[in-house]
Amino acid sequence: MQIAMIQDKIVPAEELEPVYFDRGTYFGDGVYEVVRSYDGKIFALEEHLQRFANSLAAIEIAGVDVDRIRSRIKKAFNAAGISNAKIYFHITRGSAPRDHNLDVNLEPNFFLTVTELPDNTEEKDKGIAVSTHPDWRWKRCDIKSLNLLPNVLARADAAKKGCDEAILVDQNGLITEGAGSAFFAIFGRTLQTAPLTANILPSITRKFAIKAAKNMGLEVIEKSLTPRQASRADELFIAVTTKDIVPVARFDDRSIGDGKPGKYTKLLAQEFRSFT
Amino acid sequence: MQIAMIQDKIVPAEELEPVYFDRGTYFGDGVYEVVRSYDGKIFALEEHLQRFANSLAAIEIAGVDVDRIRSRIKKAFNAAGISNAKIYFHITRGSAPRDHNLDVNLEPNFFLTVTELPDNTEEKDKGIAVSTHPDWRWKRCDIKSLNLLPNVLARADAAKKGCDEAILVDQNGLITEGAGSAFFAIFGRTLQTAPLTANILPSITRKFAIKAAKNMGLEVIEKSLTPRQASRADELFIAVTTKDIVPVARFDDRSIGDGKPGKYTKLLAQEFRSFT
Repeated sequence: MQIAMIQDKIVPAEELEPVYFDRGTYFGDGVYEVVRSYDGKIFALEEHLQRFANSLAAIEIAGVDVDRIRSRIKKAFNAAGISNAKIYFHITRGSAPRDHNLDVNLEPNFFLTVTELPDNTEEKDKGIAVSTHPDWRWKRCDIKSLNLLPNVLARADAAKKGCDEAILVDQNGLITEGAGSAFFAIFGRTLQTAPLTANILPSITRKFAIKAAKNMGLEVIEKSLTPRQASRADELFIAVTTKDIVPVARFDDRSIGDGKPGKYTKLLAQEFRSFT
Repeated sequence: MQIAMIQDKIVPAEELEPVYFDRGTYFGDGVYEVVRSYDGKIFALEEHLQRFANSLAAIEIAGVDVDRIRSRIKKAFNAAGISNAKIYFHITRGSAPRDHNLDVNLEPNFFLTVTELPDNTEEKDKGIAVSTHPDWRWKRCDIKSLNLLPNVLARADAAKKGCDEAILVDQNGLITEGAGSAFFAIFGRTLQTAPLTANILPSITRKFAIKAAKNMGLEVIEKSLTPRQASRADELFIAVTTKDIVPVARFDDRSIGDGKPGKYTKLLAQEFRSFT
């Protein structure tokens, strides 16, 4: 016999839907992706599906057919009829009574939402403020998993400081990335960002930002920055699927450049849009 | 407009129960506890509630009345009528459309299960095998959060090696704790375990194991062990709420002592039971 309780109500466990026993909730035992569309066209879907497959493999969730996931995404996107849409989806290892140990016979759970993206012209025009926070995340941030509490806490800290994003600093004093974005600095005609390691998500938007920079003839250096170095950059920006390239106008207590989006950042954002 | 999709089925988001939008699933944005009963009596409930309150405060989930949680636990435990029960409960920050940023007006979600504990006489008599794994967890393991994927992956690795628990080793080569347990070594008449830091859960069972050791006149040292040191201990054991003290008979490829539960470990388990 097993009973469950939701808020104040006792319920026989067998009457509850499987979602209540999702390993996604118990352990964050799942992986996710966020893709977006621009004007009715999903951007970089294949890159996201490849990364999703990598994440599934890394945590050994087997038996997921990526072709089927692609079909589901397209079906939901078409049904929603939103031209600038955010499509979130995750797969968890499945639903079962809570046990750290894996039951290989579980059926993975798929969940997806389609929502309309808000207009972010204003933050692109004005730039955002960011603040630094210790990088408390686990050691496999190359896996896009549901274990995101450190990101949430870092973002909450940024919000308290009136900032829009937290820039994470590891125990060696080096910036890894943002709580929900990749992080870039521009010095002269050089674009600098952290190299991809096990501590950094292989961001799709990062990849296209680098491509845009190369198209523009900028030099690209993949080398970690300290907060002090970042605060003295000519320009800073973050890159994230839902917003692509967003200028950073303030880094902790320092204004970046003249406190307005930098020249190359704006050009990069334009070049990026040519890919979409 | 927002649509959702569950497996192959498209559903209007507003028709879904809030559990589908639980921040516990999206981010692991919640904390949990496991308590157990011995012969109809819940053990160390106040210690667990205190730690739960600490975890809630650490991730800034406000407005939870611990007295109410205590009442719920007792009500569910009484309703279940299981004398040796495992009581799991968690609180998440609440249900909302997915956003890293916090909405302070969310209503936290409470979920609890009561299940019967399996008999573990055999593993107590024979001892278990453990294997080492890198400690990939985040930097605030003092918070008992739902971000447990590294623990799940470490346990899966142990299972592949025919072992029952993974012993986590940090980047300095020191053992922190087990994937789901505290870890102890005995050398002569000295009990040794890692000190409590931000990387280690303040285990309630650990606390009572130390109390039992002191009652028995053992010296207690809180100092981290290397795997090499642990593998040469006279005795090893793990401590976890659901099983209390479980002897370790094998550590990676080495037998511990004569490969059977050690003398002091057995005495400690007896002494521990006197508290329950």
